[in-house]
Amino acid sequence: MAVYTQLSAETLGHLIAHYDVGGLVSAKGIAEGVSNSNWLLETTGSVANGTRFILTMYERRIDTSELPFFLGLLDHLSERGAPVPRTIHDRSGGASREIDDKAVALIEFLPGVSVDRPTPAQAFNVGAVLAQMHLAAQDFPMRRANDLGPDVSAAVLADCGEAALADIAHDLPAAVDAARVVADGWPQGLPRSIIHSDLFPDNVLMLGDTVSGLIDFYFACHDAMAYDLAVTHAAWSFTDAGRSFRSEIGQALVAGYESVRPLDAVERSALPLLAQGAAMRFVSSRAQDWIETPADALVTRKDPMDFMRRFAFYKHNGAKAFG
Amino acid sequence: MAVYTQLSAETLGHLIAHYDVGGLVSAKGIAEGVSNSNWLLETTGSVANGTRFILTMYERRIDTSELPFFLGLLDHLSERGAPVPRTIHDRSGGASREIDDKAVALIEFLPGVSVDRPTPAQAFNVGAVLAQMHLAAQDFPMRRANDLGPDVSAAVLADCGEAALADIAHDLPAAVDAARVVADGWPQGLPRSIIHSDLFPDNVLMLGDTVSGLIDFYFACHDAMAYDLAVTHAAWSFTDAGRSFRSEIGQALVAGYESVRPLDAVERSALPLLAQGAAMRFVSSRAQDWIETPADALVTRKDPMDFMRRFAFYKHNGAKAFG
Repeated sequence: MAVYTQLSAETLGHLIAHYDVGGLVSAKGIAEGVSNSNWLLETTGSVANGTRFILTMYERRIDTSELPFFLGLLDHLSERGAPVPRTIHDRSGGASREIDDKAVALIEFLPGVSVDRPTPAQAFNVGAVLAQMHLAAQDFPMRRANDLGPDVSAAVLADCGEAALADIAHDLPAAVDAARVVADGWPQGLPRSIIHSDLFPDNVLMLGDTVSGLIDFYFACHDAMAYDLAVTHAAWSFTDAGRSFRSEIGQALVAGYESVRPLDAVERSALPLLAQGAAMRFVSSRAQDWIETPADALVTRKDPMDFMRRFAFYKHNGAKAFG
Repeated sequence: MAVYTQLSAETLGHLIAHYDVGGLVSAKGIAEGVSNSNWLLETTGSVANGTRFILTMYERRIDTSELPFFLGLLDHLSERGAPVPRTIHDRSGGASREIDDKAVALIEFLPGVSVDRPTPAQAFNVGAVLAQMHLAAQDFPMRRANDLGPDVSAAVLADCGEAALADIAHDLPAAVDAARVVADGWPQGLPRSIIHSDLFPDNVLMLGDTVSGLIDFYFACHDAMAYDLAVTHAAWSFTDAGRSFRSEIGQALVAGYESVRPLDAVERSALPLLAQGAAMRFVSSRAQDWIETPADALVTRKDPMDFMRRFAFYKHNGAKAFG
C-alpha cells in the first residue's frame, strides 16, 4: 500500500505519448499493491483503449523477466472473456516500457470495489469466475513455476526457527513441523492450469454480486487448480482473524466453482490438505516478513497467526468443511 | 501522502446512499493529503452531481469545527466560477458527515495534473486564477484567522532553539532572528480577502496551460492578498531546493495576477518582505516537523533549508525580483 516513486506530469505525459490513449487528463497515485507503485490515469482516450488506466511501476519483488508472463496472461484471459484487465500495448506492440530503469505497464482500469464481508451470492460468483479463469488459462502457452509451494513454506518456516517464531506468538513454532507434514503428504498429479494463487477479497472487484475484475496476478503460476480454490477458500471464508469459519461462504465458493468446472473425486478429497497448505503458504510468508520488518516500521505487519488458526481449522474440520 | 484508515465497500456504500450520486462503482485510496485520507470514488452518478468524487476523511490537524469554513468556501468560490471543487451536500443539505467519529466530506473531482516544472504560460495562468479566487472570496461571509502568520513563525523558530536548528543545518539558527525581524516589520493594512496560503504546484491541477483546479484549501484564512501571491511566488519560482530562482516564472506569476487584479503601490513595495515572511512560514513548520519526526520514520522530512535559501534570496534580491 504505497506509492514509492514520484512521477511528474511531464514524465507521465511523455510515457503515454507512446500509447494510443490520447493526452493526460488526470493522474492519482493510488494506495494499492505492496511491491509496486500504481497510478490511476485518465486520458482524453481512444476508441480502442478507452480513457482510464492503471499505470503500474514494478519496484521490487517482481522479476521483470517474468513480466511477459504476467502481462501476456492478462491479455490471454481477457480475450477469452474472463473479467481480467487487459494489458494496453504501446504503439510498437510492447507490453511494458521503462522509466528511469524501472519497468512500467499500462493496464486497463476495471470498475468495482473489494468487499470486506462477502455474501454467499458474492462468494458463489467468485468461485464461478475462478473456475472460468482456470479454464480460460488452460491453453496459455507460457509457464511459471509456483515458487511458494508447500516445500518452500516448510523451508521458510524452518529457516525462521522456532525461537524467532515463538517471539511472534506462543503457538507459532508448531508451524515448522506442521508445514513439513503438509509438504510430505502433498498430492501429486492434480489437474493443472495457470492459477491466481492469491485471490484475497482485495484482489476481486465486484459490482453488487457480480465479479467485475480479478486483479493482481503477480503470484500467478502453473499449479493445481484445486489448490487455487483452497487458497480462495482460506482467504474468503473466515472472520475475526481466522477464529470464525463462515461455512455458508466456503460452501458457496465451492458450489460456484463447480457450477463452471466440477471437481473430480481426487481433487475433492485433496481439498482439506490443499487448504492446510494454502494456510501454511501465508503463515510462512507472514512470519518471514514479520521477522524482517522492524517493529517500529510504519508498515503494518500481518499476523501469521491469522493463518495458523485457519490451518488448525482445516486440519481438524477440513473433511467436514469440504464435505 | 497516505491513507490512514481502511473503509470497506460496505461502509462506503452506506455513506454515499446519503448523497444524490447513485451507487458505488469504484473506490481507490489515493496518495494525497498529509493530514487526511482520500479516496477517488466513482458512482453510477446523478445529473446534478456527476460520477466522480474525492472523499476526504479528516484524520488530524484539522479542527472539524472549521469544516463549515473550508467546505463553505469551496461552494462559494465554485459558484462564482473559480476553478475549485464543489462540496457535494448530502440529501439533508449537510456538507460533512461522520464515519466512526471522523468527519468526512464528498468533494467534486476535477481533472488535471500537477506540474513539476511549470512554464511561464502556466505560471501566468496560475497567477490569474489566484487573483480570480481572491476577488471571488471577498464577499465570503465567514472568517478564519491566519494561525501561521509571521509572529507564529518567529515564535515556533524561537521554541525550536538554535541548538536544535543547528543540528538540522549549519545555517538554520540564523532563522530565529531573521523571522523576528520579518515579524517586527510586517506590513499592516494591506487589502485582504480569503487566501489559499499554501498554493504549491501540488495544489494546482492543470490541463496543458489551463488551470483546471485549485485544491486543498485547509490552510485558507483571512489575510493579505499580496501575501498569498508571495507564498505562491516562493512555491513556484525556484528549482534545485531553493538554490535557483526562475525569474521568468516569478514574473509570469505576478503578471498573471495583475492581469486580473492589479496590485496597488503599497502591496507592490511590500512584496519582498511578504516573500521573506512566506519563506519563514515554511522554514518554521518544516523545522518543527523535522525536530518532531524521528529520523528513522518512513515519512520523508522536508528540509527547512529549501526555504531558508529562498528567504536569503528575497532578502537580498527581493526588490529586483519583484521590480
